[in-house]
Amino acid sequence: MDIVIIAIGDELLSGRTVDTNSAWLSANLDSMGIRTLERLTVADEIPAIIEALRRVKSRVKVCIITGGLGPTNDDLTVDALAKFAERKLVASKESLDIVLEKYRRRGLIVPVGGVPREALLPEGATPLDNAVGVAPGILMELDDFTIIALPGVPHEMKDIFERSVSGHLANFERGARAKVESIFTTGIPESRLFGVLEPVIDSFPDAKIAFYPSFYGVEIRLTGEVADARFRKFREAVREKASPWCYSTNEGSLPAIIGEILSLRGLNLSVAESCTGGLIASRLVDVPGASRWFEGGVVAYSNDAKIELLGVERSVIEDYGAVSGIVAGQMARGAAERFHTKFALSTTGIAGPSGGTPEKPVGLVFYALHSPEGTKVRSNIIAGPREAHRHRTSQAVLTMLWLELDGKYDNHQWADGSREFKL
Amino acid sequence: MDIVIIAIGDELLSGRTVDTNSAWLSANLDSMGIRTLERLTVADEIPAIIEALRRVKSRVKVCIITGGLGPTNDDLTVDALAKFAERKLVASKESLDIVLEKYRRRGLIVPVGGVPREALLPEGATPLDNAVGVAPGILMELDDFTIIALPGVPHEMKDIFERSVSGHLANFERGARAKVESIFTTGIPESRLFGVLEPVIDSFPDAKIAFYPSFYGVEIRLTGEVADARFRKFREAVREKASPWCYSTNEGSLPAIIGEILSLRGLNLSVAESCTGGLIASRLVDVPGASRWFEGGVVAYSNDAKIELLGVERSVIEDYGAVSGIVAGQMARGAAERFHTKFALSTTGIAGPSGGTPEKPVGLVFYALHSPEGTKVRSNIIAGPREAHRHRTSQAVLTMLWLELDGKYDNHQWADGSREFKL
Repeated sequence: MDIVIIAIGDELLSGRTVDTNSAWLSANLDSMGIRTLERLTVADEIPAIIEALRRVKSRVKVCIITGGLGPTNDDLTVDALAKFAERKLVASKESLDIVLEKYRRRGLIVPVGGVPREALLPEGATPLDNAVGVAPGILMELDDFTIIALPGVPHEMKDIFERSVSGHLANFERGARAKVESIFTTGIPESRLFGVLEPVIDSFPDAKIAFYPSFYGVEIRLTGEVADARFRKFREAVREKASPWCYSTNEGSLPAIIGEILSLRGLNLSVAESCTGGLIASRLVDVPGASRWFEGGVVAYSNDAKIELLGVERSVIEDYGAVSGIVAGQMARGAAERFHTKFALSTTGIAGPSGGTPEKPVGLVFYALHSPEGTKVRSNIIAGPREAHRHRTSQAVLTMLWLELDGKYDNHQWADGSREFKL
Repeated sequence: MDIVIIAIGDELLSGRTVDTNSAWLSANLDSMGIRTLERLTVADEIPAIIEALRRVKSRVKVCIITGGLGPTNDDLTVDALAKFAERKLVASKESLDIVLEKYRRRGLIVPVGGVPREALLPEGATPLDNAVGVAPGILMELDDFTIIALPGVPHEMKDIFERSVSGHLANFERGARAKVESIFTTGIPESRLFGVLEPVIDSFPDAKIAFYPSFYGVEIRLTGEVADARFRKFREAVREKASPWCYSTNEGSLPAIIGEILSLRGLNLSVAESCTGGLIASRLVDVPGASRWFEGGVVAYSNDAKIELLGVERSVIEDYGAVSGIVAGQMARGAAERFHTKFALSTTGIAGPSGGTPEKPVGLVFYALHSPEGTKVRSNIIAGPREAHRHRTSQAVLTMLWLELDGKYDNHQWADGSREFKL
């Protein structure tokens, strides 16, 4: 079954509010086997809403609307629904009971006449109770088209969806549905990964594969039926080709994968960050239970901090500069010593926008992994703005650690443009 | 002028990715006086893209597309544009120059034939240079319809928009338009802020005011014409009532405001973080030029790190626990000493989901400000998940520092539920 979602609201079209409702609805529909064919965002205007409903009615049998249900004069969804269906607005006993109960409990003042605006629905429509707000949702079934209208306030929308809508939708016929599988990669850019996989893709021309790049790597998504032997074969071939860079097939967070390994083996970690400025520590602490394997870190932004808190030699900074491979190595070793950890990571680089020189351009970064085997340092020039530099650098050094823990470091096919820096 | 935005991507329709691009574009268009008439989200399928373009063409003269530009086989926007316009795909000299230069600089391997996929555009279309990625944006002008296609990766999309698109759009006719003004507040929840402002709102019944809460505070937005005396009066009244909590009327980042003050006065700052785990350092380093006033920090996640790196007394941790006001105070003082800074901030708390006890529940946090005047400690119980706890705590302690630097700390009307902890 396919569905269209219409989000209503001037605050969405002006960009003041990011529409998280539609993504939430799509994800929930997706998990029920219902595909969102398209999403629309339209203004708080009756003609715009009616026009959108007309277009949608010709394409799907079910439409979910969010927004524009409420007590104020810019809430026009109910009026638009009545006009679209050519029905009167009435307060049924059911909707009046629901809404007056909320008014009573919240101590709101019922308007003269005894009918709050939120109780008015198109004739024949069913109110959907809203346990966390006042205005009920609306279910309106026309001949061959069902409209479900939900409030725009996220927790009210979710409450009504979970309480009433999901059960209703489950009654519709369900299609068989393909499963989506993810392969999370790090340390290889999208174009290069595509090049690696191209022969496989070419030999399975109807297989569905998609690439989702972010600062942290590329997620590969395969769509298919596990029951289908050809899909399984395709999946195996992709996994094999991507394996040097694949850290997980179900968990997208590299810090979570690293934490799992460290925790299982009773190992621990600390960090010494310059250009990443606390981002690596922050990503590690994001993992619940990180205190079992993460001891802490130093954000050594100044030279003095590098020297005094991490034991970097002043003469080394003077001779080679703070952004250098030897400083990165000393930072990582210093963190391991200070925090008494087996492993330590460090970063030092020029995130920009200023601070570059001809020899050390903006984007240059050195990062190191200290382990019981010694200290390894790599360098790279990372393009993009300050934000990209910090995120990509954090991922690059975490990738070093993951490869080391996985026993793959020494024979790794580096595909991220980084180079080894010989200490 | 009206515009329609089409976001392309299965990851959007499946709800795996929240579409922040469309909101960013709408907000930028809005500030240029261009209205987003409607937004559409469609699948990574050529017929769906073409069908959407046909519908849009009948309604507006300009359409912006995001997503589906890239090197892989699920990047179909360019193919769809060529089919829609009935043009061939060609690599013009201009686009080939742009793309090959990126390949060269990034060390990517040019495919056999010498034409990377990203260089192919519909005949006659103009490539829009992408300073932070490979695939250029596309400007395609048809008889009475202009299509601007941008990548889906947010920082690439923003780069091309700011570099090339905004200037192009500015050439189109502009409408007169009301200005939106922001007032950024911190340390007061939305409901309480609304209570403070209610008398003002009641005496200006047609004034437009909206509240946008986040982990970091509430942004108040006023819409009106600066030429209108009544609007100016309303704005003054709102600003006055909100002034105890207002840190800026143009810059939403509290770290940037703090950095400006520190930098002007030649002061410096360090941090000692436990529960916030590097988030404060990371937010400070986000401010370009932070090295002028930020020395660094310690993420002291373990007790040993608090003792060894920050000089917290072991007996104090044993007697009061690591999550205590006295430990917070010693952490801040320790950071100021170790980093030789005038000011230092610290946090220690229970972010959850586990780790709480009846005396020290999940959500409990102590945070401190060390300054030349001495050490001040506050505590609070912060509701919400781990992520909310860390973000709100980071903002609470930055708010302490801002109030201190602004000379408002001692007479502040605390509205965030926090209490002073007497050392």
